[in-house]
Amino acid sequence: MATHSLFLLPGDGIGTEIMLEVEKLIKWTNSEQLTDFSTDAGLAGGSAYDKYQVAITDEDTEKAKAADAVIFGAVGGPKWDDVPYEHRPEAALLRLRKEMAVFANLRPAICYPALADASSLKRELVEGLDILIVRELTGGVYFGEPKTITDLENGQKRAVDTQVYETYEIDRIARVAFDLARTRNNKVHSADKKNVMKSGVLWDEVVKGVGKDYADVELHHILADNAAMQLVRNPKQFDVMVTDNLFGDILSDVAAMLTGSLGMLPSASLGSPDPATGKRKAFYEPVHGSAPDIAGKGIANPIAMIASVAMALRYSFGMIELATKIENAISAVLSDGLRTGDIAQDNRKTVGTEEMGAAILAKL
Amino acid sequence: MATHSLFLLPGDGIGTEIMLEVEKLIKWTNSEQLTDFSTDAGLAGGSAYDKYQVAITDEDTEKAKAADAVIFGAVGGPKWDDVPYEHRPEAALLRLRKEMAVFANLRPAICYPALADASSLKRELVEGLDILIVRELTGGVYFGEPKTITDLENGQKRAVDTQVYETYEIDRIARVAFDLARTRNNKVHSADKKNVMKSGVLWDEVVKGVGKDYADVELHHILADNAAMQLVRNPKQFDVMVTDNLFGDILSDVAAMLTGSLGMLPSASLGSPDPATGKRKAFYEPVHGSAPDIAGKGIANPIAMIASVAMALRYSFGMIELATKIENAISAVLSDGLRTGDIAQDNRKTVGTEEMGAAILAKL
Ligand SMILES: CC(C)[C@H](C(=O)O)[C@@H](O)C(=O)O
Ligand SMILES: CC(C)[C@H](C(=O)O)[C@@H](O)C(=O)O
Repeated sequence: MATHSLFLLPGDGIGTEIMLEVEKLIKWTNSEQLTDFSTDAGLAGGSAYDKYQVAITDEDTEKAKAADAVIFGAVGGPKWDDVPYEHRPEAALLRLRKEMAVFANLRPAICYPALADASSLKRELVEGLDILIVRELTGGVYFGEPKTITDLENGQKRAVDTQVYETYEIDRIARVAFDLARTRNNKVHSADKKNVMKSGVLWDEVVKGVGKDYADVELHHILADNAAMQLVRNPKQFDVMVTDNLFGDILSDVAAMLTGSLGMLPSASLGSPDPATGKRKAFYEPVHGSAPDIAGKGIANPIAMIASVAMALRYSFGMIELATKIENAISAVLSDGLRTGDIAQDNRKTVGTEEMGAAILAKL
Repeated sequence: MATHSLFLLPGDGIGTEIMLEVEKLIKWTNSEQLTDFSTDAGLAGGSAYDKYQVAITDEDTEKAKAADAVIFGAVGGPKWDDVPYEHRPEAALLRLRKEMAVFANLRPAICYPALADASSLKRELVEGLDILIVRELTGGVYFGEPKTITDLENGQKRAVDTQVYETYEIDRIARVAFDLARTRNNKVHSADKKNVMKSGVLWDEVVKGVGKDYADVELHHILADNAAMQLVRNPKQFDVMVTDNLFGDILSDVAAMLTGSLGMLPSASLGSPDPATGKRKAFYEPVHGSAPDIAGKGIANPIAMIASVAMALRYSFGMIELATKIENAISAVLSDGLRTGDIAQDNRKTVGTEEMGAAILAKL
């Protein structure tokens, strides 16, 4: 039996194309005996809906929960704009996050030096940028109940969403952020809207409490609206930023976009270590989406997807060396001047998905 | 009796300093018989708390509701970090918004040509930028109930905030956005998280319904996280963006920051026209905050505050010509090379609050 199991969910759009490059990578690391992965694959999002009329089947959900790590592509596309709400492609993602209980979403925003000019920000503001957004992923307004639309007597409707946080949910995500800050620059910004939201008040109270256990880490409070502004004004002031599910959704996208490297950024979503085995459920996916506009053309950038595998090696399997090797291979290929269409530059060679995947593999 | 009444609420920090320049302006327009304003002033935020132990008194709230327009400075500062939650400075703003029922918050994000280099974005991406964010201001998670922190039996706490929207609230803000788009470039982006939030689903449904009454206006749906990204990537793709209270808070701050002109941007918050008189309650304030770090030094930029008065002339009193004159005076002073500290540039003259206010007045 293989030592580690990976469950691959390519999803929709470019998800399926970039996952092929992951499969090639794993085949190679296995054949070199650098890893001993068993892989299985399932359907998620629109592709699952087309076959099973649900965004993800119970069976695939169970497989995801049983795997040592899930490698996820991306879901969604205009084709499924009119499917019933509970079966929309995103529902696969939300179900997996919740059932796998992967509450800690790590979204690094790194500016690859070779790509600093691709940022819409001035080069000096983003060159060398390295922020880690730690987003709470299984609570807040994404999952709180009631979450309803009701018909009113006057013929109108009322929609309700509920943001709920309990102490333990904030405590555990704060600890993840502080622990990670210790491996970086010892600085955490905690973002909320405590001036308006009670969940923000509790968020701030709990984070400050946890902060007492990390006297060596600088803790700053920042309002979420100001955080968005400051990310645009001067992103390098940040090291780790911890925030709730909804603010994390927006702030991590802003941070990712700043880098000019959106097609390059991976993410990890981690659960709590199992008390018996010490293993934590884990889910890896690129920050970018399914890009229906370029799907099927063989031009998607596979780097974020490949970097997600590197993150898996690092966080789930402790294979730091191999992870670093893959990350270095990505940098080397960029330095060689290879670019996919999304990061195309004058005087650089534009290649397709396969060619980029092969070039990275060749560096290894 | 004067024709129009203004109620001035300078607030805290630089609010009081920049309001002095407003008073000088009004004194001048009155003396030139360009306007016939009566003015009264009150306390809001920390300054009200220091005197009355509330963020705003009932009496001042009533005055605000009775006035033809409220001109508001800014509230808050570290001095009041520990006042009881219900009396924190921001509570003044929230109470006024709710009781005046000023549901339509217009936040223009304009890049003054003279300041394009002050943006953190590359010049070509922001030069000529002119976006109008239309933010719903009296609903959503800011005011929905329950909004509580409760003690749980296990010694932990649970915090709840509630996002609520009814059809009529979305309908009326959508109409404001479409009407304004008609005076601009006939394009509306409506931002929500309908892939996760039921309020987003209703939001989108109602906005699309209203859109049918505005066949001449292009309507685009955009997810709020993508909207934040696209604002950073290519802000000039937007004309009018309509969104809810919380997303509007964040997206309007991002848009404002892009321009490099944060200290220059005014905002208007408008109610529904009174069926009898046609008058709508109105509240004008700069987009920037109370800037406690520079308060009391006489160096704050009064332009956003003065531009807020111009907005009042335009939206509350139909004095388009005078409004334009003031806006032109601001541009002229910038072209002359005058700058306050926040927008200081090499080879430009840095002046204080009073000097900037006087220079604008001199141009009139
Ligand atoms: C697809 C969507 C449900 C998801 C989210 O809102 O969390 C996405 O935007 C993300 O950030 O992973
Ligand atoms: C001060 C605060 C309550 C307010 C808000 O969140 O609305 C501010 O950020 C704003 O945008 O006017």
